[in-house]
Amino acid sequence: MIIVLKHGADPKESERLVEWIKNLGIDVHESAGSYQTVLGLIGDTAKVDADLIASLDIVESVRRISDTFKCCNRRFHPEDTVINIGGAQIGGGGFCVIAGPCSVESEKQIINIAQAVKAAGAQMLRGGAFKPRTSPYDFQGLRGEGIKLLLAAKQETGLPIVTEIMSASDLDLFEKVDVLQVGARNMQNFDLLKALGQTRKPILLKRGLANTLKELLMSAEYIMSSGNPNVILCERGIRTYSDYLRNTLDLSAVPMLHELSHLPVIVDPSHATGISRIVPPMALAATACGADGLMIEVHNDPSHALSDGAQCLTPDEFAQLQARIASVRRAIS
Amino acid sequence: MIIVLKHGADPKESERLVEWIKNLGIDVHESAGSYQTVLGLIGDTAKVDADLIASLDIVESVRRISDTFKCCNRRFHPEDTVINIGGAQIGGGGFCVIAGPCSVESEKQIINIAQAVKAAGAQMLRGGAFKPRTSPYDFQGLRGEGIKLLLAAKQETGLPIVTEIMSASDLDLFEKVDVLQVGARNMQNFDLLKALGQTRKPILLKRGLANTLKELLMSAEYIMSSGNPNVILCERGIRTYSDYLRNTLDLSAVPMLHELSHLPVIVDPSHATGISRIVPPMALAATACGADGLMIEVHNDPSHALSDGAQCLTPDEFAQLQARIASVRRAIS
Amino acid sequence: MIIVLKHGADPKESERLVEWIKNLGIDVHESAGSYQTVLGLIGDTAKVDADLIASLDIVESVRRISDTFKCCNRRFHPEDTVINIGGAQIGGGGFCVIAGPCSVESEKQIINIAQAVKAAGAQMLRGGAFKPRTSPYDFQGLRGEGIKLLLAAKQETGLPIVTEIMSASDLDLFEKVDVLQVGARNMQNFDLLKALGQTRKPILLKRGLANTLKELLMSAEYIMSSGNPNVILCERGIRTYSDYLRNTLDLSAVPMLHELSHLPVIVDPSHATGISRIVPPMALAATACGADGLMIEVHNDPSHALSDGAQCLTPDEFAQLQARIASVRRAIS
Amino acid sequence: MIIVLKHGADPKESERLVEWIKNLGIDVHESAGSYQTVLGLIGDTAKVDADLIASLDIVESVRRISDTFKCCNRRFHPEDTVINIGGAQIGGGGFCVIAGPCSVESEKQIINIAQAVKAAGAQMLRGGAFKPRTSPYDFQGLRGEGIKLLLAAKQETGLPIVTEIMSASDLDLFEKVDVLQVGARNMQNFDLLKALGQTRKPILLKRGLANTLKELLMSAEYIMSSGNPNVILCERGIRTYSDYLRNTLDLSAVPMLHELSHLPVIVDPSHATGISRIVPPMALAATACGADGLMIEVHNDPSHALSDGAQCLTPDEFAQLQARIASVRRAIS
Repeated sequence: MIIVLKHGADPKESERLVEWIKNLGIDVHESAGSYQTVLGLIGDTAKVDADLIASLDIVESVRRISDTFKCCNRRFHPEDTVINIGGAQIGGGGFCVIAGPCSVESEKQIINIAQAVKAAGAQMLRGGAFKPRTSPYDFQGLRGEGIKLLLAAKQETGLPIVTEIMSASDLDLFEKVDVLQVGARNMQNFDLLKALGQTRKPILLKRGLANTLKELLMSAEYIMSSGNPNVILCERGIRTYSDYLRNTLDLSAVPMLHELSHLPVIVDPSHATGISRIVPPMALAATACGADGLMIEVHNDPSHALSDGAQCLTPDEFAQLQARIASVRRAIS
Repeated sequence: MIIVLKHGADPKESERLVEWIKNLGIDVHESAGSYQTVLGLIGDTAKVDADLIASLDIVESVRRISDTFKCCNRRFHPEDTVINIGGAQIGGGGFCVIAGPCSVESEKQIINIAQAVKAAGAQMLRGGAFKPRTSPYDFQGLRGEGIKLLLAAKQETGLPIVTEIMSASDLDLFEKVDVLQVGARNMQNFDLLKALGQTRKPILLKRGLANTLKELLMSAEYIMSSGNPNVILCERGIRTYSDYLRNTLDLSAVPMLHELSHLPVIVDPSHATGISRIVPPMALAATACGADGLMIEVHNDPSHALSDGAQCLTPDEFAQLQARIASVRRAIS
Repeated sequence: MIIVLKHGADPKESERLVEWIKNLGIDVHESAGSYQTVLGLIGDTAKVDADLIASLDIVESVRRISDTFKCCNRRFHPEDTVINIGGAQIGGGGFCVIAGPCSVESEKQIINIAQAVKAAGAQMLRGGAFKPRTSPYDFQGLRGEGIKLLLAAKQETGLPIVTEIMSASDLDLFEKVDVLQVGARNMQNFDLLKALGQTRKPILLKRGLANTLKELLMSAEYIMSSGNPNVILCERGIRTYSDYLRNTLDLSAVPMLHELSHLPVIVDPSHATGISRIVPPMALAATACGADGLMIEVHNDPSHALSDGAQCLTPDEFAQLQARIASVRRAIS
Repeated sequence: MIIVLKHGADPKESERLVEWIKNLGIDVHESAGSYQTVLGLIGDTAKVDADLIASLDIVESVRRISDTFKCCNRRFHPEDTVINIGGAQIGGGGFCVIAGPCSVESEKQIINIAQAVKAAGAQMLRGGAFKPRTSPYDFQGLRGEGIKLLLAAKQETGLPIVTEIMSASDLDLFEKVDVLQVGARNMQNFDLLKALGQTRKPILLKRGLANTLKELLMSAEYIMSSGNPNVILCERGIRTYSDYLRNTLDLSAVPMLHELSHLPVIVDPSHATGISRIVPPMALAATACGADGLMIEVHNDPSHALSDGAQCLTPDEFAQLQARIASVRRAIS
């Protein structure tokens, strides 16, 4: 941590600050220039409150120079994390496609789609049982019943299942779920993150609507520092002033997160764009820039899906896309 | 709801769509132009999924023309909601200042500040017991113990207390708390909102980091449609590309929310700016544009606050600000 | 400037860097910690390319600690700049209201409005002659003819006039214009800024749609370093994900710019909100947080204005607002 | 255009509005529901001012249902525009890589780089002669001299050249330049766009920092409606709250622009990311989602580039990237 003192800072106050920092067990290197004095803090500065110091009258600015994320940091864990999920692998050079409908609607629907996406080569099945909706008047999902239907589809096809959890109090219902998804709106629901950190379930953590990469990593850190190392990061579009598309898919997050962290990074082009015909090009782009996998909405009858129909692919479109993804995978390997 | 069909849309598919809508119990007025055909839907279109219709091949665009928020809508409830909290009132022309430290740290600290802000005319005491922090390594608040200290300060001063709840499972601890705050990061934690809707406690609902006014109102709707009409909206700054200030305080939200809704609207200039010397001008601006109250961080020793010290006022600065606020209140009344 | 070297940086490369910097005539203070080595650069670092240094393999990060803006910096010029414009003053504690229509439409129109806003106490007349429009098919303004009409209104009422210039090649037409406005879209049209820096005309510089405060100040710097010290900064709303209002008025820019710079800061609530009934509360808020003036659209027949009618006040509404502004001015003085 | 009248709108005022619209030569279809009355306008509504109508007391909302862009609209020109530039082609299924340094620095530098990028298969040479810089104290480019050096490199290698124009008054200097670039900051410098519309030079139009796709298309429309059909659109990253990367590259703009317009769309991953090691994955992603070309910064000595060194590739890195791009091109064809 580096503290820049204001030009003409009262030397007494500056001494008091240095002493206060040293009392925290941290060394201070002072470097006085003609315009500024710079204090370099050496030691475990994670416990030093940068905002507090920045508020002092004599301080010009404060800056952390070491990362505040530890568990997910690639510096301390250079090799990729690989998460095994019922045969499928995410991370470490493999590629994993999670496909399925936005919402689970009926046993017939989910089993049909599961069979279709499996036939097209998907490694996992997704489907919403608990649905976070902006409006309380919109369909909120089949909830516990939806999870049962997902498990039926799993039994039928062998595909591991991924579904969203909205509250720690529902954890019992997710006992047989393979991957628990934390949605964008709950990325900073820290109590939920801590509760998921108590489990060993793989957690698919979606980036929040307007969250930075560092905030995403700090949320992963909540899960990991509570004891669960199995975190999958997911870029799903951020909110900007986009006029034609729902969100702005931030694909540069993929290589950047890979540099910062050893965790796998997947991309959800369906929610990011909200338009089914834009999903394939963005899925290919995500593949080309090194994503560890994709999460794609597939519905056997997009015009009758109960939610988000506009962004679903049909099983046929999905199968065609899978072939093109495989082709791009070969091209970049 | 208005549906614009594509130029050259297949008449058969268009007929099927019209029939499907009519089956939902909704009237359809068709208006065929030379370039487009427009369908006007008359009836309770809240149950019609606009995204689904937009996904059809023959549809150019879909647009709702009536608001999806009902309980908080000023159209259906023209007079201001007034919420009574232990003598203080929020809404309906009154003005309510909530002041106190970011975090509760000790009994002495919270009682001292409570006495100071009461002396300066604050109507309520705020203080964080459960603290949502980006990093799991930062101070997470005194939790249940912090609430006890707030209640001690309430007993000492008579000031009603406001503090943040992060999880429905903590509700028991908040039994004697006067106003439960939902933080920006939990604005779309719908399970928490529904649980709070089961109570009759006044809920102070903060706008999320990148949420629109409509989303804020829909989150209020979650609480209200669950049975709790006592919602206070709070603007606290949104995330932009601001370089010197933490967030961008969106004061135009105040008159706009007043137009859309009958709920009271308060402003938190402390979190929005993050710089204590910018808090007073923004507090005055919020007052001038018609806010129903303010939430201001006050600490008796800003340079020793455990969190967010940079944005706290001293009791003296707060007392001076109160006098200026009163003066602006008179000027606009 | 502070350079943080990577942990384990090759000492030879680090020496080469230090030498290269010293060759630029800059002193380097080295401070080696157990985790990082920090180089503090002392001297005129304006000529050091931070991006270049940041690109080196051995460098972790680079940070400037001194401002890159000089002419407009309050540190080097603590007292407020006051600009005199035909009797009116902007800056230094005064308050200046610039009012008028979005576009000049006819001699009768502009003279009528000029008389009305003068009667209501406006100090200057605004009116668009050259109009930057998103679409080439929208009304582009009366151009040179519009300026003649503004000058006629000036002669009639004595009000100094403010109007936008879009290209340096039009400068001759603006000879008798009192204040030249640079619109948001041209805030970083550096050739235009340099050309305006060659004149001594007061320049009203609007903040760009997504520009930071530092970028606004650097654009002022283009004008001032070319020789023209007469710059007025104008906050007019920034682009966010606002749903009901056109832009987000960033009022915290007012006190922040006052702290950073000695230049006057005015606010345009009309373009920022785009809704005439939100203009008065935001005008009062801007007044309350210390703006040096306002720019307000007034039209004698809002429903027939050729552009931006939705955001115009009538002369009556403007007169009422002026009385309330005066009242808030007294309250904060 | 659709106008929704408020519930309970005065029928007299509504009639007056209908009459006024009919006087503009536009048909009005009225559709009265129990809650709203909807007016459908049929005819050339480009001349109807939507903002003006929205400002009327009786109007709830107004919405255009036809595009306001004509020349660049794919509806009216279904086949791709192909632009021929000295042998190279942009658009229509080809792929064009423009490479070179951020700034032209010397004859030796630009010729060396030109030879290197040509050897690696680039179709055009880029290099900045006129440099828009945020600070007036930063290097502003070699200007006219820089163009001469680019022309020397063209003569040496045969590569067509692309360079930025900042002001119409410099047009004479660009006589022999093959492609004129309009930078992000000048995307809405409408006077410059109109002047470039008077030429027949290919124009590379970069998307502004916070501009929507529609605004980009409307700026293309300024050039095209002035008579020049040779416009190349360029996505180069938009401003968000990105923490590690300079901007957020919006790759979904590529397929979306292709759907809306027949103009070629290229991508500049260098400026978007600002980090050279993130450039290759984003270049591959842009290729995979269907871009018509790329603009990539290459410097033979990144650590000595005068500007933007951090984002440049070396010629070797560029040659490797070219091979991978070719591989992805084959995979998606």
